[in-house]
Amino acid sequence: MTSGDRAELARLVGVAETALADALARTAGPSARLEAAMRHAVNAGGKRLRPVLCLAAAAAIDPGADARRAAAALELVHTYSLIHDDLPCMDNADLRRGKPTVHRAFDEAAAVLAGDALLALAFELTAEHPAETARDLTRVLARASGPAHLVGGQMEDTLGLLGPASAERLDAIQRGKTAAMIAASLEMGAVAARAGDGARAAFREAGLSLGVAFQIADDLLDLQGDASVVGKPTGADAARGKLTYHGLHGVEAARAKVRELTGTCRARLRATGGRTAFLEALADSLIDRRN
Amino acid sequence: MTSGDRAELARLVGVAETALADALARTAGPSARLEAAMRHAVNAGGKRLRPVLCLAAAAAIDPGADARRAAAALELVHTYSLIHDDLPCMDNADLRRGKPTVHRAFDEAAAVLAGDALLALAFELTAEHPAETARDLTRVLARASGPAHLVGGQMEDTLGLLGPASAERLDAIQRGKTAAMIAASLEMGAVAARAGDGARAAFREAGLSLGVAFQIADDLLDLQGDASVVGKPTGADAARGKLTYHGLHGVEAARAKVRELTGTCRARLRATGGRTAFLEALADSLIDRRN
Repeated sequence: MTSGDRAELARLVGVAETALADALARTAGPSARLEAAMRHAVNAGGKRLRPVLCLAAAAAIDPGADARRAAAALELVHTYSLIHDDLPCMDNADLRRGKPTVHRAFDEAAAVLAGDALLALAFELTAEHPAETARDLTRVLARASGPAHLVGGQMEDTLGLLGPASAERLDAIQRGKTAAMIAASLEMGAVAARAGDGARAAFREAGLSLGVAFQIADDLLDLQGDASVVGKPTGADAARGKLTYHGLHGVEAARAKVRELTGTCRARLRATGGRTAFLEALADSLIDRRN
Repeated sequence: MTSGDRAELARLVGVAETALADALARTAGPSARLEAAMRHAVNAGGKRLRPVLCLAAAAAIDPGADARRAAAALELVHTYSLIHDDLPCMDNADLRRGKPTVHRAFDEAAAVLAGDALLALAFELTAEHPAETARDLTRVLARASGPAHLVGGQMEDTLGLLGPASAERLDAIQRGKTAAMIAASLEMGAVAARAGDGARAAFREAGLSLGVAFQIADDLLDLQGDASVVGKPTGADAARGKLTYHGLHGVEAARAKVRELTGTCRARLRATGGRTAFLEALADSLIDRRN
């Protein structure tokens, strides 16, 4: 990324943080404990990748478009999914980004309910737009975060190698758990900017390529914990029986797949007709870091 | 209820069941296990009270209105909240309506994720309407099911008598946990029938009165398990330290409050200007059974 790209990234992260703070400021409800648990999770940090992709896609179509609530809704859904994934009955994680997970800092009931609350709050945000935009944002987010994608992918990922180790099942998990929300991030930016159907579809497709490339590259990174045995899955993923692209097809095929998908992503971003130079650089940097 | 009212109730339950079956038929995703867990919960039965209230409110304004997806969305949210409430970290319930709860029939991960999936699916349904209706349905459902109401009320209910036993906190729990979703049920019916703002508000207010009356009457019913000590909370609610209206204000005051709220509910239903005779009879029967 150029220094201009890095400045734009920092600017968009700032917009995302403000949008998240605004979203959390509106949750005045009966339970201070619930709100504290929600804040604990949202304020634990993170790259804010999904909001940044959403804001950048909107700006690529119309620099004056307001995608702030759509961006915040995406991060709330991402945060909810991390809280629930971390629960003792799933990944049983004590730490997330160096801080205690919600069920460790509060308790399991607060963690389940904080996740639930963030998911519902996300749809309060998508509904707060002009009618057509609200309807389309809600539809895209509900589909990406529902049983067909995010939750279905997580269920199968949890089962891991207990389920069949087929290319189809791996593809469904990767599309569901990671790529669908990355695709929704770009598409919701396009919706907020009132892009045409063709551009919307191109952003969605670019996001699917980026999301799958990102997941394969991320899984490869897990391998490098033990570089002496590259080519044989021995990292944390393998230990917990995770189904991965390199585990199924080999490391070289995985690297080739990432390169292919990166090219597809770039071509689809250009096909949107928007000013996508920053998004192309961001996509490259996300994958390069891992490949 | 007259035999005509009973026939109308049976008809609306039938419409709700078909709408739920249609909603579940669209969830084709990567995880058969997730879908089985969702079906287990939704098909466990129940009175389908929230969809019936929604369908009846819509019919009171416009007999030709289509409130089927709104009705199904309400029951999906209700079902999700029961799955999560039953988890070991909350009520730790083994049975729900005589059948194993989702975490007993499957496991905890499947129960958490099935609840999550049903919540997201509900918003897929609200988004599938003409733009303005979709936006309004999503907004009403997201608010009622979010931190300000359903989830916040559940968090405080879980804490029970560990929190302050104040009239304000009890009111927040009862409005949040029960009344907000009953109010949303009537309001979403009105939205689906494109009722005016005044009628929408009257339906919402009627629902709040009905919901609080229903909750107070339900808690009184719990007392009757030990009729010899009426006036002193000794039922299951008291055993688990639940904050109740009769526990705070006494049994006679609770009965008087139910009568008052029942009258308010009826007056507000009439103020909608719709054909609400069936809804008035239904509201009376729901509360009478408990008072």
